[in-house]
Amino acid sequence: MKAAVIGIGLIGGSMALALKEKGLIEKAIGVDNNVTHTTKALELGLVDDINSLEQAVQESDLVILAVPVHAISGLLPRVLDLVDRQVVMDVGSTKAAMLEVIASHPKRSRFVASHPMWGTEYSGPEAAVKDAFAGRATVICNREESDKDAVTLVEDLYTTLGMHLVYMDAAAHDVHVAYVSHISHITSFALANTVLEKEREEDAIFELASAGFASTVRLAKSNPETWASIFMENRENVLDVLNEHISQLRKFKACLEKENIEYLAELMANANKIKRILK
Amino acid sequence: MKAAVIGIGLIGGSMALALKEKGLIEKAIGVDNNVTHTTKALELGLVDDINSLEQAVQESDLVILAVPVHAISGLLPRVLDLVDRQVVMDVGSTKAAMLEVIASHPKRSRFVASHPMWGTEYSGPEAAVKDAFAGRATVICNREESDKDAVTLVEDLYTTLGMHLVYMDAAAHDVHVAYVSHISHITSFALANTVLEKEREEDAIFELASAGFASTVRLAKSNPETWASIFMENRENVLDVLNEHISQLRKFKACLEKENIEYLAELMANANKIKRILK
Repeated sequence: MKAAVIGIGLIGGSMALALKEKGLIEKAIGVDNNVTHTTKALELGLVDDINSLEQAVQESDLVILAVPVHAISGLLPRVLDLVDRQVVMDVGSTKAAMLEVIASHPKRSRFVASHPMWGTEYSGPEAAVKDAFAGRATVICNREESDKDAVTLVEDLYTTLGMHLVYMDAAAHDVHVAYVSHISHITSFALANTVLEKEREEDAIFELASAGFASTVRLAKSNPETWASIFMENRENVLDVLNEHISQLRKFKACLEKENIEYLAELMANANKIKRILK
Repeated sequence: MKAAVIGIGLIGGSMALALKEKGLIEKAIGVDNNVTHTTKALELGLVDDINSLEQAVQESDLVILAVPVHAISGLLPRVLDLVDRQVVMDVGSTKAAMLEVIASHPKRSRFVASHPMWGTEYSGPEAAVKDAFAGRATVICNREESDKDAVTLVEDLYTTLGMHLVYMDAAAHDVHVAYVSHISHITSFALANTVLEKEREEDAIFELASAGFASTVRLAKSNPETWASIFMENRENVLDVLNEHISQLRKFKACLEKENIEYLAELMANANKIKRILK
């Protein structure tokens, strides 16, 4: 099997590596507008060849869209226009908007919407790693709208990478990821800005920053373009969660202002319930 | 040297283990109001003996206060009343309030205020670990108010544990830790509450929660009593940082509401500067 990987950054690059490592494909053809990325991807052996979108799709059995999510909506109809036998899948963090765009496309059923729940705070082809994905969940959305052979191919692919499958409709997916992924990124970015804004003495931060701070603020190193794209695509859900989060922070603020230590401890005891979910 | 460890939880227990491991003390005497803790601490070999505050101080050369910070202010004058030759140190997360309480105590100079920047999200004696502290910073506050022999003993102790020393006055310390530690805990607790509030389908969280979420929300597992105590002791600084953090979050909110993707990306590009500080 040959795969076209459109967008060879952290996710596309790691996916190409994993598919070859597992023997799922014998050739990965990279497509990327960014020449620095294509040069680096070839140099690192992430892909075997670089080609135009049209030629890469034509030559492939599987097309993997791994560009920032706001670009998928524009690109996906173009890719489907080029498709006959191929299976097309994405690895994007939001789903509803892109599925709406292709809802009545004659080749809609060749597309399988998927979201492997893996990533790091780094970006670009040099951030691609071997052994990504394993042990994590992949969400497949609106499975019933895709051809059976296409779904089976994508399911087998993720299973071979060591992932377990979760099925959801696109709207539910977008709500869930707003809670378990997107809001974490916003809080991390905002926390970094909070500290950078007030702490001018960088040495002091550097000396005192403990492991807890580093872990909370780690995601603030993430790529702005990738995440601006995700937040805009999932705007309404992210706004809902962000409003809820601000009101939760306000409860802590009110406790401190009123010196209400009992309610403060209660808020934290409630937060401790996350232990049941995250071991 | 014999040490009295008052409060045998995560920090006190790990400290007792480390001091014995490094041969700095031949005996650790535990003091704790909580019988479950004292029983567990003996059972785990964190301390060699349990005794009353009075007897433990009398028998010791070094007294380590490792109780929640709001309790230190009450306990510290009592401990200093019992002291003649002994060195007294704390390991608490805030400093200004406790130093004010003992400012004119005749034995003030036997006390060294210190804050080793190490911890985990777990608590109690069973959370104590070997090889804690190494590689992190310890802040020593208001060094000039302590006797030279006392400061030297405490400095040598932390250096032997593999820590590097940072000197600050208590007020500056409390501001810095509000930024690099306390606010991280509040955002984590509030984030856990946000997700728990809205996500009733726990399986969905469990399935989809990626490494990024886990790292951002990890501190929400922390002990409510410990942290209520810290937040109240450092109330004004924490409120300042929390207000700043909420206003940073509001900037993200405004960008989403106004679909201002340029400013959104700019906010994140600014947050990326944290890379310079946290590798």
